Amino acid sequence: MVSHDWSESTTSDCANVDILIVGAGPAGLMAACCAAQYTRSIRIIDLKESRTRTGHGDGFQSRTLEILDSFGLAQDILKQSTPDVEGSYWTSKKGCGHIQRVGIEEAGNGHNSRFPKALLNQGATEQILLDYLCGKHQIFVERSTLAQTLHIRDVADAAFPVSVGILHVTDNDNQRSKGRATVNARYLVACDGAHSWTREQLNVPTEGDPSGSTWGVFDIVPISDFPDIRRSCAIHSEGVGSIMTIPRENRMVRFYTHLHDGVEKTKVDDSSGVPHELVDRAARTMKPYTLTCKHCDWWSLYRVGRRLTTKYRPHDRVFLVGDAAHSHSPLGGQGMNVSMQDSYNLVWKLGAVLSGLFDNAIFDTYEEERRPVAERLMRLDAKLVEAYENGSTRSDKGVAETREDYSGFMSGIELIYSPNKLVSHGGSSSSASARHVKLGKRIDSVPVTTHCDGTRTQLARYLSMNGSWRLFVFSGDLRQQERMDLLTRFAEAFMKCPSLAKLNQTSFGNSKSSIIESILIHSSPTTAFNLLDLPDMFHPFDEELGWDYWKVFTDDKEHTTDVSHAYETYGIDEAGPCCLILCRPDQHVAWIGDSEDVAGLDEHFSRFVCK
Amino acid sequence: MVSHDWSESTTSDCANVDILIVGAGPAGLMAACCAAQYTRSIRIIDLKESRTRTGHGDGFQSRTLEILDSFGLAQDILKQSTPDVEGSYWTSKKGCGHIQRVGIEEAGNGHNSRFPKALLNQGATEQILLDYLCGKHQIFVERSTLAQTLHIRDVADAAFPVSVGILHVTDNDNQRSKGRATVNARYLVACDGAHSWTREQLNVPTEGDPSGSTWGVFDIVPISDFPDIRRSCAIHSEGVGSIMTIPRENRMVRFYTHLHDGVEKTKVDDSSGVPHELVDRAARTMKPYTLTCKHCDWWSLYRVGRRLTTKYRPHDRVFLVGDAAHSHSPLGGQGMNVSMQDSYNLVWKLGAVLSGLFDNAIFDTYEEERRPVAERLMRLDAKLVEAYENGSTRSDKGVAETREDYSGFMSGIELIYSPNKLVSHGGSSSSASARHVKLGKRIDSVPVTTHCDGTRTQLARYLSMNGSWRLFVFSGDLRQQERMDLLTRFAEAFMKCPSLAKLNQTSFGNSKSSIIESILIHSSPTTAFNLLDLPDMFHPFDEELGWDYWKVFTDDKEHTTDVSHAYETYGIDEAGPCCLILCRPDQHVAWIGDSEDVAGLDEHFSRFVCK
Repeated sequence: MVSHDWSESTTSDCANVDILIVGAGPAGLMAACCAAQYTRSIRIIDLKESRTRTGHGDGFQSRTLEILDSFGLAQDILKQSTPDVEGSYWTSKKGCGHIQRVGIEEAGNGHNSRFPKALLNQGATEQILLDYLCGKHQIFVERSTLAQTLHIRDVADAAFPVSVGILHVTDNDNQRSKGRATVNARYLVACDGAHSWTREQLNVPTEGDPSGSTWGVFDIVPISDFPDIRRSCAIHSEGVGSIMTIPRENRMVRFYTHLHDGVEKTKVDDSSGVPHELVDRAARTMKPYTLTCKHCDWWSLYRVGRRLTTKYRPHDRVFLVGDAAHSHSPLGGQGMNVSMQDSYNLVWKLGAVLSGLFDNAIFDTYEEERRPVAERLMRLDAKLVEAYENGSTRSDKGVAETREDYSGFMSGIELIYSPNKLVSHGGSSSSASARHVKLGKRIDSVPVTTHCDGTRTQLARYLSMNGSWRLFVFSGDLRQQERMDLLTRFAEAFMKCPSLAKLNQTSFGNSKSSIIESILIHSSPTTAFNLLDLPDMFHPFDEELGWDYWKVFTDDKEHTTDVSHAYETYGIDEAGPCCLILCRPDQHVAWIGDSEDVAGLDEHFSRFVCK
Repeated sequence: MVSHDWSESTTSDCANVDILIVGAGPAGLMAACCAAQYTRSIRIIDLKESRTRTGHGDGFQSRTLEILDSFGLAQDILKQSTPDVEGSYWTSKKGCGHIQRVGIEEAGNGHNSRFPKALLNQGATEQILLDYLCGKHQIFVERSTLAQTLHIRDVADAAFPVSVGILHVTDNDNQRSKGRATVNARYLVACDGAHSWTREQLNVPTEGDPSGSTWGVFDIVPISDFPDIRRSCAIHSEGVGSIMTIPRENRMVRFYTHLHDGVEKTKVDDSSGVPHELVDRAARTMKPYTLTCKHCDWWSLYRVGRRLTTKYRPHDRVFLVGDAAHSHSPLGGQGMNVSMQDSYNLVWKLGAVLSGLFDNAIFDTYEEERRPVAERLMRLDAKLVEAYENGSTRSDKGVAETREDYSGFMSGIELIYSPNKLVSHGGSSSSASARHVKLGKRIDSVPVTTHCDGTRTQLARYLSMNGSWRLFVFSGDLRQQERMDLLTRFAEAFMKCPSLAKLNQTSFGNSKSSIIESILIHSSPTTAFNLLDLPDMFHPFDEELGWDYWKVFTDDKEHTTDVSHAYETYGIDEAGPCCLILCRPDQHVAWIGDSEDVAGLDEHFSRFVCK
C-alpha cells in the first residue's frame, strides 16, 4: 500500500494548543486519534525522523483490535497481519537433547471478542494510525522535534499552563537545530517511552527492578524444517536454553532467545545484517530441526526489567501513558496493547473536560483504572519470564499454565474497572435486569439487525469512538401495546428530565455527536411498526440530513441465524422491566437500571457533569 | 480517507508498451489491475481530468466483490459501502392513489458467494483501484489525454503494431494542447465507454435500439417518512409513474424516476443544485409519504437504449470492453459489474500470451465467453425496463419476478462458460469425481484450515489474481497409507511429465508465480504428519525464502464449525479416487479429473500452451 509519512506537512505552528502529545509511537498516535474526536487543537511531536520501520511491538490482543475497530481501523490491521491461532510447547527429550512437542493449544481469545489475536509489525500499525490522523483529521506528526524544557504555570494565571520548549533538529545525532519554539498547552500527554523525558523533568520516581536477564530478539524469514515454524512456540531445551517464536506477516518469524550466559553485542553485530550468533543459538535450541536464514528484518538485545511509575498524573495537567508509566519484557505480547489502552482510557476524559462537559475530577479515574492493570501486568511478566527462563522442568507453573491463568487479562477483554466516579457501584436491581453484563467491563458486541434496512451487523459497528456515551434501551417485543407504552413512558420521563434531555441534545466535538446517544434494541420483526412511530429520541431530526435511522435495532430471532442474541448474551428478560445499560465512550459499562429509574440515571451523570 | 488522484505522476512516457488502455473508468482500471500482474509496460489514458467525483454506477454484485477480493480490495469496498439486504415492492392502492407495500424480499445473493450485494459510488470504487495501481504497481493514469488517431500496422512488420496519437489537453472544452505524442502498443484495450472512440475508428457497427424512454436519476440525502427509504424499492403509482430507490453510503439514496411524459432539461436544471422537478415527481409517486431534500450529490437525465457491438475483437490486437461493447439501462445494477468482469476475463489471457506462455488462439474465448453474457443482459434489461415502466398491473412479469428469474445471472455467480479452448468438455468421469463442481463456472470458496498454522480461512484468500492456474488436489485422509501412496504416485507422475513439470516450475510476471500452482486439500488433522514429508510440489523451496508453507490445507471437520466443508461442497468422495480440479487464473473451472489422469491434464494444457 501507499506509505506516506505525513511529516512534511502543513500542521499549524500554533503555539497555544489544547493537547500536546510527546511521542508518536502507538500510545501517542492512539492518544491523537481519541483527541481528534473532540478538538482540532492538538500537536504531536517526536524526536525520530520517521515512523518505526522494522521490529518492536507486534502482537495485537483482541481488545486492542476492538478499540481500533471503533475508529474503523481493525480491518486495515487484519488485512496485513497474521492471525495467531495456535500456541505450541516443546521441551527436550530426556537424554538425546532433541526437542519434542508437548502440546498445541488454541491461542484464541475465548473471551467473547469478535477479533482473534493477530500479529503485525509496529511500523505498519503506526502507518495505519498516521493515515487515519492525516486523512480524516488533518493531524500531522512533527518529526525530528525534541522536547527540551518544561515549565508549568499556575492554572489561575494561564489558560495554557504547560509550556514546552521544542527544538526542530536536522540531524538527530548532533541535534543541530532548525529552530526553537515554545508550545503552550492546556494538557500534556507524555507518550515518550520507557526513558520518558517528561517523567524525568518532573522527577517522578519509578518502582521495580530495571535489571534482569538478557534476551535477544530478531525478525527473520526462517529456512527451517521445524514443523511448528508457523505457530507461536515456547521451546525449552535442557542445557541449551529457551526461545519463543511468533509467526509474522511476509513469511517472517519473530524469535526471542534467552541469553542466560550473556552475549556481547559486538559478537552479534557482525556487519552481515543477520545476527548469526543469535540465530545459531536458536538453532541449537531447536535440534534436531534446522534453522538458517538469508533475510533479517530487525534484531536487538535487551535486558528484562520491570518499572512502574509512582504517579500516573504527576501534575494536574500532565499524564504519563504507556511505556512512560510502565515497562517490562515483551514476552506476554502486552506492551503496545496496554499502552494504546492507556491512551484510550485517558483521552476521552481529557476531551470531555476540554469540551466543558465534565468536571476535571474524573481525571482521578485514569490512575484508579489503569494502575491496577499495570500492576497485574508486572506480576504476569515476572511469572512469564521465570517460566521461560526455567523451562517447564521446575515445580512452579510453566509458560502454558501462566498464559492460561492470565488469558482473559492478556486478551484485554476480561478487564473490569472498579466502581469510581464514572462507574456505578450498582445494586441488586441493576444486576437483575442484565444478568450477564458487568459494571466496569467493556460491553460484548452482539449481532443485531438494523431496523431501517434489515442489515445484519455487529452492534459494535455503531459504537465508534466519537465521545458519545451510549444508553441502550431494551424494550422487548413492541408489538405488545404494554411494552410500547412502557417505552413511551420512559422516553417522556427521560426528555422531561432537563439535565438528561440536555445531554441527549447537546452536540459536541468534530462529529457533532450527542453526549448521550440513545439506542433501542427491541425484539420485534423490522416490519412490525414504522421507525418514525417510535419516540423522537430514537430518530433525532436534522434540518439538512433528515431523520437518523440508525439508532434502532432488533434482536429478531427469526431473522438471525447467529447463535448468540442480544437479550440472551446480556441476560435480559424480554418480558421483564425495560432494561437500560449505559456505556462510556470507551464501551465500558457505567450504569445499569430499568426504564422506571430515570432518576438513577440522572443521578449517575450528576456526579461528573458540569452544571 | 486520503484521496489521491495519482495523476501528476512519474509514469514513463515510454512510446512502446505492451498494453495501452483507453479509458480509466472501472473497466479500464480493472484491466490495468489484471495487466499489472504480468507486465509493467502498460499505459492507461483518460480524457477526463480527474476520476468520477459523484454519481454513475454504484451497485456491486457478489461476483464483482469476489473479483476485487482477488486483489485484496473487497474489504476496502465493503468498509465504505452500504449493504443491499432487502428489496421492497410498493404499488398504489385502488382508488385512493396512495402506495402500499406489496412485499419485502431478501436481496441476498443466495448463490454461494461469501459476499453480499453492496452499494458504493463509482468514484470511491475508482479511488480504491487507483490506490492499488499506484501503491502496489506504480501505475498512474494519464489524465486529460485524448486519443486522436489510430493506425494499425501489419504484425509481421512491427512488434508494437497499434499506434495511437494522443494529445495532452489543458482544457477539456477547448482541447487546447499541452503536447502530442504517439503510443505504440502490442495490444489496445478499449474501455472508452458507450460512445467508444475506438469502436468508431474501426467502424464497428452496433446492434440494438439506442432510443427508448427517458429516465431521471439523482443521488440525494432524503428527508422522508417513507418506511422503506433505506431499502431498495420498486414503487409504482398508478397514473403517476414508477420509481426505483437504492440506499447508499453517507445517508444518501439513489432514485431513478421514469419520465413517461418526458421532461425538459432546462426545467430540471434550475440552478439550485437540487433537481426539484425530479424530486417532486418522485414525491408524488410516494404519496402519502413525504420526500424533500436539502442536499443533492448528482443528477442526470438519460434515454434508455440497448446497443451491442457486432465485434468484441474488431482487430487481432484490439479489444472492446465494457460499455464500449454493450450499453443498456442502469436498472439492473449491472453495468459496472459486467464491464469489470469483461476486463477480468480478457486481460489475464492477454498477459499470458504477452508472457509467451500461451498461444494467441485463446483470444477467441473472449468473445465466446463474454458475448453470451451481454446478450443475456440485453434480454434482462428489456424485461426490467418494461416491468418498471408498466408497474405490476399488466399480465407480464413484474419487477420482483424478473429479478428473481435472473438473480443468479445478476449476482454474476451462476455464470458458466461453455466448453472452448480453455474449458474442457468433460466427460462422465470428471463429473463423478467432483459431483457439485461445474466446468466453466467459477469455483465456490470454502472454509479450510491452513496446515502449517491452524488458521481457519476461506480458500479464496489463497486464490489471488496473479496469473497462476490452480490445480487443487483432494487426497482424502493421509493418515491412511494407501491414500498417501496415491498422492505420492500422482506427484511422481506429474513431475515426470516434462510439460506439466515445466508449467509448475516456470515463474513469470510480477509476483513470480508459477503457471500451475498445486494446492493440496486433505482431510486429516493438521498434526497428523509434517508438511515437509509431503511431495515437494506442495512445498516449493526458495533459496532466500525457504519453503512455501501455504499450499496445504485441511478440511478437518473436527476443527471446523462451519456448515460447509470442501469435500461436501464440491461433492468429492473422500475415499474415492484422488480428485483433481483445475481452475483458470479467473477462478473458472477448466478441467476436472482424478490423480490417475495426468495424461488428461497434460492434454488439456497442450491445447493452448506454446511449445
